[in-house]
Amino acid sequence: MKEPTLAIIREAHKRIAPYIHRTPVMSSQSLNRIFKAELFFKCENLQKVGAFKMRGAANTIFSLSDEEAARGVATHSSGNHAAALALAARYRGIKAYIVMPETAPQIKKKAVAGYGAEIIFCQPTLQSREATLEQVVERTGAVFIHPYNDYRIIAGQATAALELLEEIMDLDIVMTPVGGGGLLSGTALSVSFLSPKARVIAGEPKGADDAFRSLQAGTIQPSVNPKTMADGLLTSLGDKTFPIIQRLVREIVTVSEANIITAMRHIWERMKLIVEPSSAVPLGALLEKPELFEDRRISIIISGGNVNLDHLPWKRE
Amino acid sequence: MKEPTLAIIREAHKRIAPYIHRTPVMSSQSLNRIFKAELFFKCENLQKVGAFKMRGAANTIFSLSDEEAARGVATHSSGNHAAALALAARYRGIKAYIVMPETAPQIKKKAVAGYGAEIIFCQPTLQSREATLEQVVERTGAVFIHPYNDYRIIAGQATAALELLEEIMDLDIVMTPVGGGGLLSGTALSVSFLSPKARVIAGEPKGADDAFRSLQAGTIQPSVNPKTMADGLLTSLGDKTFPIIQRLVREIVTVSEANIITAMRHIWERMKLIVEPSSAVPLGALLEKPELFEDRRISIIISGGNVNLDHLPWKRE
Repeated sequence: MKEPTLAIIREAHKRIAPYIHRTPVMSSQSLNRIFKAELFFKCENLQKVGAFKMRGAANTIFSLSDEEAARGVATHSSGNHAAALALAARYRGIKAYIVMPETAPQIKKKAVAGYGAEIIFCQPTLQSREATLEQVVERTGAVFIHPYNDYRIIAGQATAALELLEEIMDLDIVMTPVGGGGLLSGTALSVSFLSPKARVIAGEPKGADDAFRSLQAGTIQPSVNPKTMADGLLTSLGDKTFPIIQRLVREIVTVSEANIITAMRHIWERMKLIVEPSSAVPLGALLEKPELFEDRRISIIISGGNVNLDHLPWKRE
Repeated sequence: MKEPTLAIIREAHKRIAPYIHRTPVMSSQSLNRIFKAELFFKCENLQKVGAFKMRGAANTIFSLSDEEAARGVATHSSGNHAAALALAARYRGIKAYIVMPETAPQIKKKAVAGYGAEIIFCQPTLQSREATLEQVVERTGAVFIHPYNDYRIIAGQATAALELLEEIMDLDIVMTPVGGGGLLSGTALSVSFLSPKARVIAGEPKGADDAFRSLQAGTIQPSVNPKTMADGLLTSLGDKTFPIIQRLVREIVTVSEANIITAMRHIWERMKLIVEPSSAVPLGALLEKPELFEDRRISIIISGGNVNLDHLPWKRE
């Protein structure tokens, strides 16, 4: 397989259209005033399973041959990719096996089980996770679907920007958060094809700045002991996402936890939208480096809205 | 002035169109499953100032003669009507005087001041509130704009259902919360003109059930010591809203605080939308009397999204 072309991304969009929402692009005059920029939010928090991950998961699962699909799919994740894989598998009528640490929050176990996936518990270590996944694949023959380092996943995630750029013209900047780089690399590809003058800039938590360091070093730097409330952004880049990011992403801005909270609260209060901390990181980047963004026409892809409402990051008065 | 006709409501809609958002209608397959109904949410939480009140305020302010408008407008409210009046006055370039108890939450004072209104503080009693308003009107000549008992306000609020019924056909039931009855009476009028087969049903907190009791008694029953977290629904019906409600509203379902919380949390979690407790009352009615709603095609007008994020009604784990 090779890097997604525009034709491949368009094909992915057609393939997944019956299984995803075409999410709205929203804006807020008060946020524009506060941030001194013209902001357009592509609301993937309103996507199925509450995150853009549905796009990549659906594209990958509906790209499988019937023979592959019959064996089912598997992944290790306790986050949005797991839920997305579970739901996309249900749409195709095949089994999904999700390896998850026993310590995962109840709410995430329930979500994945609710979409009909089989959960296999492991110890909360990388070794146990990988060993357990290997056993599952061996036992069931299921196809392992990586959460981001896969061109079918990247092509799927690229469809969010495809929709965005059909609706909003003349953007100066397109932004996403960056964790493993699936959304960022897909977005960068779509922007390079459809709006090549726009710059792609990512936001990354200072406490998990491996992508920032990778761009600096010119080689993939692992994420070691990441510490951030943006729990969707803990992973390292992969050998498929990194080269695209290296080639097409102009800058990665690192964002403090305080600015992530401020940005998240602005979105909640002004837009009345529930977004998860990871989604607020790009807006947080505007607080870190206002000079990069002032008076620009900027779109931010809001990655998801799955947040534990009992544990919000701001202090209760 | 007389009760709004369809022509008057359409005129109101044309009048306010430059100053309001045409809000989206959203739905959620998981809520449909949970509530065993087909639900369509008209999202007035995404309206300007975060509430449907912007419609009535804009209609009233842009209905004033130039001479009236020059004197400014005044009201007593610490809620969404005050913010809406302030913003609509700013759009028309006139003054707004808002009488507010000193004890009102900081966040509400800031919102109203942020829209450029002049705040006049009073004691937190009805007497002080009315006396202070009277003084303001005497001193400035400002036109008092009642939050709901005014046909121009009712015609403005009716435009939310006007938009809704242009988009969603064949509804069995249309629902709103009820406080003073501005939104409910306006909605009932629009539904009677455009979708007369649909039933209009309101949700009202059990702890502030004066509208329910008014329908039973056949005369307006005052709201005495209302106790509910749905702080937009504390007021009594007025002599303009009540006759419309009496004639056109099929039923008012009273809702417990527990069901308001459950409904609110469902909307937050499943739709990723921030709605205030008052907005969750109609969905709470489905929990109170499921037999009324099962398998129906139902639209709920989400009244607003202004909620103190530091004081959410569910327990922190």
